[in-house]
Amino acid sequence: WATAPTSGLLLNSVEAKGISQQVAELPLLAKSVEAMAEGLNAFMSIDMDVPVPRDAGGGYTHERHKKNGQAIYEAATLYQVTGEQRYADFAVALLLRYADLYPKIGPHPEHKHQAPGKLFWQILNDAVWLVYVIQGYDQLQDVLTPEQKELIARNLLNPYVKYLSVDSSETFNKVHNHGTWAAAAVGMTGLVLGNQEYVDIALKGSAKDGHSGFLKQIEALFSPDGYYTEGPYYQRYALMPFVVFARALDRVQPQWDIFKYRDGVLLKAIYACINLSYNNLFFPLNDAIKDKGLDTIELVYGVDIAYALTKDKGLLSVAANQQQVIVSGDGLLVAQAIAAQQQQPFDYSSMLFRDGANGDEGGVAVLRSDDAKSALVVKAAGQGMGHGHFDRLGWLYYDHGNEIVSDYGAARYLNVVTKRGGVYLPENNTWAKQSIAHNTLVVDERSHFNGKLGKASESSAKVSVFSDKLNAVSVVEANAYPGVSFERTMGLIQTALLDSPLVLDLMTIRSSTKHQYDLPLHYAGQLTYISEQPKVALNTMETLGKKHGYQHLWKKGWLPVNGSAAQVTWLKGNRFYSLNTLLPKDSQILFAELGANDPEFNLRRENALVLRQTGRKDTHFVSVLESHGEYNGVREYTKQPTSQVRGLEHHVDKDLSLVLVELDGGARIVVAKADSVDPDQQHTLAFNGKRYQWRGHLAIFEESSNDGK
Amino acid sequence: WATAPTSGLLLNSVEAKGISQQVAELPLLAKSVEAMAEGLNAFMSIDMDVPVPRDAGGGYTHERHKKNGQAIYEAATLYQVTGEQRYADFAVALLLRYADLYPKIGPHPEHKHQAPGKLFWQILNDAVWLVYVIQGYDQLQDVLTPEQKELIARNLLNPYVKYLSVDSSETFNKVHNHGTWAAAAVGMTGLVLGNQEYVDIALKGSAKDGHSGFLKQIEALFSPDGYYTEGPYYQRYALMPFVVFARALDRVQPQWDIFKYRDGVLLKAIYACINLSYNNLFFPLNDAIKDKGLDTIELVYGVDIAYALTKDKGLLSVAANQQQVIVSGDGLLVAQAIAAQQQQPFDYSSMLFRDGANGDEGGVAVLRSDDAKSALVVKAAGQGMGHGHFDRLGWLYYDHGNEIVSDYGAARYLNVVTKRGGVYLPENNTWAKQSIAHNTLVVDERSHFNGKLGKASESSAKVSVFSDKLNAVSVVEANAYPGVSFERTMGLIQTALLDSPLVLDLMTIRSSTKHQYDLPLHYAGQLTYISEQPKVALNTMETLGKKHGYQHLWKKGWLPVNGSAAQVTWLKGNRFYSLNTLLPKDSQILFAELGANDPEFNLRRENALVLRQTGRKDTHFVSVLESHGEYNGVREYTKQPTSQVRGLEHHVDKDLSLVLVELDGGARIVVAKADSVDPDQQHTLAFNGKRYQWRGHLAIFEESSNDGK
Ligand SMILES: [Zn+2]
Ligand SMILES: [Zn+2]
Repeated sequence: WATAPTSGLLLNSVEAKGISQQVAELPLLAKSVEAMAEGLNAFMSIDMDVPVPRDAGGGYTHERHKKNGQAIYEAATLYQVTGEQRYADFAVALLLRYADLYPKIGPHPEHKHQAPGKLFWQILNDAVWLVYVIQGYDQLQDVLTPEQKELIARNLLNPYVKYLSVDSSETFNKVHNHGTWAAAAVGMTGLVLGNQEYVDIALKGSAKDGHSGFLKQIEALFSPDGYYTEGPYYQRYALMPFVVFARALDRVQPQWDIFKYRDGVLLKAIYACINLSYNNLFFPLNDAIKDKGLDTIELVYGVDIAYALTKDKGLLSVAANQQQVIVSGDGLLVAQAIAAQQQQPFDYSSMLFRDGANGDEGGVAVLRSDDAKSALVVKAAGQGMGHGHFDRLGWLYYDHGNEIVSDYGAARYLNVVTKRGGVYLPENNTWAKQSIAHNTLVVDERSHFNGKLGKASESSAKVSVFSDKLNAVSVVEANAYPGVSFERTMGLIQTALLDSPLVLDLMTIRSSTKHQYDLPLHYAGQLTYISEQPKVALNTMETLGKKHGYQHLWKKGWLPVNGSAAQVTWLKGNRFYSLNTLLPKDSQILFAELGANDPEFNLRRENALVLRQTGRKDTHFVSVLESHGEYNGVREYTKQPTSQVRGLEHHVDKDLSLVLVELDGGARIVVAKADSVDPDQQHTLAFNGKRYQWRGHLAIFEESSNDGK
Repeated sequence: WATAPTSGLLLNSVEAKGISQQVAELPLLAKSVEAMAEGLNAFMSIDMDVPVPRDAGGGYTHERHKKNGQAIYEAATLYQVTGEQRYADFAVALLLRYADLYPKIGPHPEHKHQAPGKLFWQILNDAVWLVYVIQGYDQLQDVLTPEQKELIARNLLNPYVKYLSVDSSETFNKVHNHGTWAAAAVGMTGLVLGNQEYVDIALKGSAKDGHSGFLKQIEALFSPDGYYTEGPYYQRYALMPFVVFARALDRVQPQWDIFKYRDGVLLKAIYACINLSYNNLFFPLNDAIKDKGLDTIELVYGVDIAYALTKDKGLLSVAANQQQVIVSGDGLLVAQAIAAQQQQPFDYSSMLFRDGANGDEGGVAVLRSDDAKSALVVKAAGQGMGHGHFDRLGWLYYDHGNEIVSDYGAARYLNVVTKRGGVYLPENNTWAKQSIAHNTLVVDERSHFNGKLGKASESSAKVSVFSDKLNAVSVVEANAYPGVSFERTMGLIQTALLDSPLVLDLMTIRSSTKHQYDLPLHYAGQLTYISEQPKVALNTMETLGKKHGYQHLWKKGWLPVNGSAAQVTWLKGNRFYSLNTLLPKDSQILFAELGANDPEFNLRRENALVLRQTGRKDTHFVSVLESHGEYNGVREYTKQPTSQVRGLEHHVDKDLSLVLVELDGGARIVVAKADSVDPDQQHTLAFNGKRYQWRGHLAIFEESSNDGK
């Protein structure tokens, strides 16, 4: 039985004993241990193999080394928590094989990148391998003989660290996700071997001057609110080495107080991941696989670690949904707390996540209803590097458990070899990244920045006002199109007049020259009502345009609108959604369906409305989206399948404006807006015999049906 | 507190007391009682109104009388199970209002049908009303004074029965669902009032000769297997008056032994409903709203009653999924059994449901895998009256929780007033009923029977062989097209060679003249692989044809196939599905998408493959559909995204044939078929140096990769 102390990176012998003794009473932990044992037992039943590295990613030696590294970690962990000697024997034997192999190999033969690994074609994979293996080695302290330890350190760990940090110093000192994995590997090895040099260079870079290394990466890669510029999908991925190394450091060398570093940004980054989700799925901003959510392994680490640090009971409900914990001290704490029924709902609330290392590159606003049933996401951030989409001032909307106004995410079938090997598909560039694929303004059928990454990376959108009190945000984009700037004010207006919040969408466009303005709305659901019969493509259908994503949209129908309000209702889940929109003379609502110019049938068949204004300079788009009613097919009733919005007006008077939403029965919601964002400035505007007075950029008034009569 | 005995139609005072005492410990019952109380309390909070009948269906007086009838039942029931006097007072007061109104009114002014009601425009609604109200009246025995009872019987119940059974004797004596409701209303009233005449005419018709009435309806409306010819969606609906009246009769006059009548067909009908479902949803044969399933109120009655009669613990798992029970004696039993954790999985197995009163009008075969994960449905039944679809020999396939090969169901948005008031849409006729909307043969782009109901109703398809041992069925249709007959053999082949059963689809067509044969396959999912690049509509798209449903399909792509096997794979849920099909020279696979000629955007966007053979007389379609692999987006792995079928051959030798399916690795599945359906006939066929010997119509052989080498 294990008694000798380990360094206890994420699991020490006291915790291991605790797991061993309590696992039967802790269902979540039991499930996690069993899953680990099941996978490992299967792996142990095949012959051990530590091949000379040969294959690129996906090939045999690549996959085998990955699995071997994972198995060393798992076997050593299972030895600690079950006491079964066969796990220790297996882990030791495999480790010794690596100690034998490592001195004999050079840089990987298949490398195509600047930074080859030795076991793998990319040094990134080598770093990840060591992060797992060093945790396994740590759990084997009491079974390894002094001679074995010396051998492993001499032949494997020390030269491995040297290869990562010295021979590959360029990657090691990069302020980039690959550098973080390298720092984690080197730093954690230092903690286990008691080699402070390794810890120091991991934290402060090869030169130990802090210009690179883990601390620098914490500063540079997250915004002050813990937002990662590529978006939540990649944030989840990037998070892993940060939280694993930080937690190990915190446990072994608490003097660094790493989770307080930079105002606690690592914890903020974990919370940001959770907050950037709905119904357990991440908001699919930028390149994102839409299946990904809070149950990914990276977030299992994140949540368990965050709970250990904060004891926030809201995290327990996230952990319970994950249906697994890490087999670690923190995982034990989480499983104990859940078994003791301490979990509480996670507190999802309206938040602004500023983007950029200094928080001055725009941001992503998340507006939620008090009951957490509705969420509105407004993106006004930086470009997000190569995985960024051209979607300045775009939005998403979720309600009653469903995606209602959506982003396509990435055009990619992850790991599906019949879809071009599982990589990003051509349609990721030709469709998914283009502005028309998003719920944002497209001018003259060209994407923001003409679809050029370099140009887009030079600037960010701007959040001019964020109010969690009003549940509203104003955002501005001035660079996406030469000579055109646009501002968008969006709100999730909670009012006793309606049983769901009303989405306000007010876009103001300024230009000195005439343009075609398209405002797409990608809706999920089935159309159930259009206020007038559109013209519809019956026997033949053509594309909406030729390029910038328009070539992928079929033009299903078009409805001319001439200076009036139009209404489009769709059904999603058991609920109806109505867009009420006000369009000037010579406008159109286009009905489009994705799927043209798609020779490999790569694109999903999704639907969009496109609000189009033609030949305009300055103009506005004014819409409200209402969630209403209920469709119940089982019990055979339908409630309120039509919008309760019966009138929509927009009144502009110089730098002040009103959006007036009249409901059935005559009550009104009035949104008053000043161009000024000064929170203290007083404004007064008279309209239709009423005076509206407010302070600051925005105000929301409710008028009962008797007001003003 | 209630002590006087009631007739106890579905609830007697002992049971009511049981509910009252145990409800706190029985969550399912508590939920059901609470739901009833919540709805009723809301209704009681508005002013009582018993208006003079005026409006047609959907109008105020119509809806109000419906709600009043329901409220009398609910208030009386809640009085019994809670002891709260206010419920009794309310029910009595409302009943007396009807006793006041009823003598004053004549036939409903809005009637447009031959059979007007008095409270409602259709007598059907009047009958339904009384079925509820008489149950309520029954629960009020101990609170009504003798004078009140006399008044209600004289002014309401007796004249109501007279109106249903004498004044409206044509409906009453109809062998039709409307007649069943009338019989139930009259018979249950007889049971409560102790009026045997009412019971007798309800059971045997006005003339008491058994040519009409409830017993006759039991004989005529269900097949010997309990199948209702309109299909499961309407079967569920039709079931209600049968089970409610039968159960009341069984409790009050058990001497009829009604649930044993005709070999227990009423119980078979309840079980048929359950068996004609997958993942709690009914197979959407004929006109069907696809949301409907085992949790509909009719099946709640059916399951609770069937459990009381059979104590089949498998029914408890269905009841648990329904999440409610009837507030009745049977509901109490179910709630007790579930609370005592007696529930077991319902035993879904392969079954044939013969159609027609005598069971000789074809049938619906349901083939399931042993693990119940897969289900294959083959329809070879009668037309199913006006709600029938032209889909002889069509099939459906479900796997791993999802619909994989689908039927559109009905083109209708039930109760959604913005969709033409919620009625069947024009596209129900132009698309949903047409043969091309189904997974069956279409000859020369015309629907079966040219889409004519009358002609189709004269015949049925035929089930020539059903084998639950082989999990296969052979079906034949000889009347759908003049001069063309087609036979289909389908199987859900379970083999240790594959981890999911293989769907076999072998169609043989005979005609002395040349035709175009289309075999559509409506698949759910995203295409991930096609064995050759099809031609694809890129910038413009046209319809597949002009009529019989073809006008609703866009022609997305087409792949010429010339006497070889082709493969199409799609992803649905976390699994891949591959159609492997063998097509002769000059064939095509068409890729189609629903949605053309749909000016109101009524149709869902669904996808189909159409296998097309042109200019052929006798021919075959030979396909196998494989469920394989796994897509896991959360944990980022994909297994087996390609079919394991690497070869498909069809060998015909006079009246014998072989389908040879070769798998990766060389193992083979061989299906041997004789034209003869004689189960005892011996057959021998040699092919490729091997001899296949079998007895009967069909046999399935497995050959390991070494066989024959
Ligand atoms: Zn996007
Ligand atoms: Zn159908």
